[in-house]
Amino acid sequence: MLGRCLENVREKSPLVQCITNYVTVNDVANILLACGGSPIMIDQPEEAADIASICSALYINIGTLNKAAIEGMYAAGRRALSIGHPILFDPVGAGASTYRTDLCLSIIHELKPIAIRANSSEVRALAAAMGISASRGASRGVDANAADSANEGNLDEMTAFLNEFVKKCGRVTAMTGPIDLISDGERCFVIRNGRPEMERITGTGCQLSGMMTAYVAANADNVLEAAAAAAAVMGVAGEIGFKALLPGEGNATYRNRIIDAVYNMDAAVLEEGVRCEIR
Amino acid sequence: MLGRCLENVREKSPLVQCITNYVTVNDVANILLACGGSPIMIDQPEEAADIASICSALYINIGTLNKAAIEGMYAAGRRALSIGHPILFDPVGAGASTYRTDLCLSIIHELKPIAIRANSSEVRALAAAMGISASRGASRGVDANAADSANEGNLDEMTAFLNEFVKKCGRVTAMTGPIDLISDGERCFVIRNGRPEMERITGTGCQLSGMMTAYVAANADNVLEAAAAAAAVMGVAGEIGFKALLPGEGNATYRNRIIDAVYNMDAAVLEEGVRCEIR
Amino acid sequence: MLGRCLENVREKSPLVQCITNYVTVNDVANILLACGGSPIMIDQPEEAADIASICSALYINIGTLNKAAIEGMYAAGRRALSIGHPILFDPVGAGASTYRTDLCLSIIHELKPIAIRANSSEVRALAAAMGISASRGASRGVDANAADSANEGNLDEMTAFLNEFVKKCGRVTAMTGPIDLISDGERCFVIRNGRPEMERITGTGCQLSGMMTAYVAANADNVLEAAAAAAAVMGVAGEIGFKALLPGEGNATYRNRIIDAVYNMDAAVLEEGVRCEIR
Repeated sequence: MLGRCLENVREKSPLVQCITNYVTVNDVANILLACGGSPIMIDQPEEAADIASICSALYINIGTLNKAAIEGMYAAGRRALSIGHPILFDPVGAGASTYRTDLCLSIIHELKPIAIRANSSEVRALAAAMGISASRGASRGVDANAADSANEGNLDEMTAFLNEFVKKCGRVTAMTGPIDLISDGERCFVIRNGRPEMERITGTGCQLSGMMTAYVAANADNVLEAAAAAAAVMGVAGEIGFKALLPGEGNATYRNRIIDAVYNMDAAVLEEGVRCEIR
Repeated sequence: MLGRCLENVREKSPLVQCITNYVTVNDVANILLACGGSPIMIDQPEEAADIASICSALYINIGTLNKAAIEGMYAAGRRALSIGHPILFDPVGAGASTYRTDLCLSIIHELKPIAIRANSSEVRALAAAMGISASRGASRGVDANAADSANEGNLDEMTAFLNEFVKKCGRVTAMTGPIDLISDGERCFVIRNGRPEMERITGTGCQLSGMMTAYVAANADNVLEAAAAAAAVMGVAGEIGFKALLPGEGNATYRNRIIDAVYNMDAAVLEEGVRCEIR
Repeated sequence: MLGRCLENVREKSPLVQCITNYVTVNDVANILLACGGSPIMIDQPEEAADIASICSALYINIGTLNKAAIEGMYAAGRRALSIGHPILFDPVGAGASTYRTDLCLSIIHELKPIAIRANSSEVRALAAAMGISASRGASRGVDANAADSANEGNLDEMTAFLNEFVKKCGRVTAMTGPIDLISDGERCFVIRNGRPEMERITGTGCQLSGMMTAYVAANADNVLEAAAAAAAVMGVAGEIGFKALLPGEGNATYRNRIIDAVYNMDAAVLEEGVRCEIR
């Protein structure tokens, strides 16, 4: 099923409008091309809506904000929403500033993204802002990071927390980290792929969100599975890329090897490499 | 002759002001350094004209637009024009929005770039906006992309179309794709180098345009040959980089290998690798 | 001592706010992760100060300017200054336009960066704007570049010039190039590492400045040594990365290999590789 999602992206080659940050935008474009999608990065209010019309989906990432791009997000987002094109939202840094958290809530409320991809700290910040207790799942961690992330010890609690979040905000949500959880409020995919060294590369989250937008666009009837498939592709690519590292290579080369692995991945490699269960 | 153009870039090391998009700007800078040029990316209206004065040439690419950078394009462009420095224009996404097409026409009209580098869909959109029938050369294609691009079956028509476009807008134009056509309205270079996999890398067009600006700057008396030489370097580098790919490598590594090949290219390698005719 | 600085960065993993240019920002983020730091690139005035509060240090780089980011620099900088967080300033292109030189002086005066990292032409431009004769050290050069840079022939003069600059502006300053000089006005580290080919990669200076910010943050009591250690890491990584280049590889791959070498560097490798004296 996940492999079928991958093949749909390669067959349909969805055109994805990306309004994203200037830090990792090049890698986002290249991973979209690697997975079979086609990226367009046009973000200004004068034309963002026109571009949304010719694309299959919209990816909004708030990593680096500026006023014009925010206007562009709303212009493109309203158009996409009005014509039924899926929007994926990456609430980068939610919780880092009030300004940012407020913007996230506004985007979720007004643009109704079909899916959200975030790390556990960001989901937690959004949940808190929506009035959902963030204490669940936070109890067993040793430090802030461990407390925020899903791990084998808190998996039931984290799954329940994510399901509650999804029900409250009404969006399929992928909460990624050492263990990825992807929930539609009823079912939750649990994916155990990837490598801890991926955190030492800037933008693996942004890249995954971009790729996930293509997956959702090409698998519109199976948003949950599509989001899970994208997370699985990233995780398996992270493992393949890590194995390919030679002595002396580090995070810069690892970045390329992950995108290369996405480029070369097919359904068989994905299905063989994924470690996935549904709860 | 193409080799001589390459050597002139390495000898003169032209300083190129780039006002370009934030998606591929890093690769543009590195390919300019690889070919022997020197990039400066300063785009704001407060200083864009001052920088144009100290550079040898100006590269304008409208991939991602914002108001300040557009002002910067005009400020730098007017200065470059007034002091006789060459401008190369890359009309990214011409035709994707009316806003974008109108801006392209304005830039061509007011800033009089010495050369344009675009893909066939963009040239077609500009031609249509200038009242040139785009039907020529479009008749044999199977789908939109094939119809837009030059191929062995439509080469005479595409050459005629490009020559007509060049005569109408008065700019040397490189229309690149599977076959590159570079015309000054009278003569048309036909270059058959490169690899289809280059389309799976973001920004190979932006990179070529940046490099072509350095070539035009260092070969001011031979703009047509200079533009053709830059296209030939990119195509030959694409072939060398592709041959260097190891199993498991994909578009991210390929991107680096192309720039690496430009870095290592000399006139002999270029002359040996290029497949070029003049029509 | 330099090795101890490196270990402190890895142990403390300082969070560094970067307000930097869009050309090299991705490499800056990845080298910060490679050295053990953690980057946040948030630059808009609405939230820049809030982010400064949660970070350990602020890196300001004026490579590509825009009005909002300049406001962000001041907002973040004032906050960092008020709470005692170190600021490192990279005055990219000082001297290239009056606008730029004036901004540099204003930032130095108002935000009081704890350290400056610049190339010799930029230091020279700032010195001239501050009324320090730039003739010192400029006497023996063959051409402008050679005249601007420290070399074995002008080292005494360049050291005296840099010490004078540091005393005048009150900031530890790293003037990097073929020979790196890092001075607090009394002592001057002289570091002879690196490779001339590093100049053919865009942004090695920006990267070094970003990494140096993490070093200063993690070694707050030894700013001079911290800045020297960062320069030494970059130089040694440049040598390791160069040795690792295979035939046919060029500046694009070299860029990755340098960051990879930083990623893998430990105190022992640094201490063994560095060629450093104190004058």
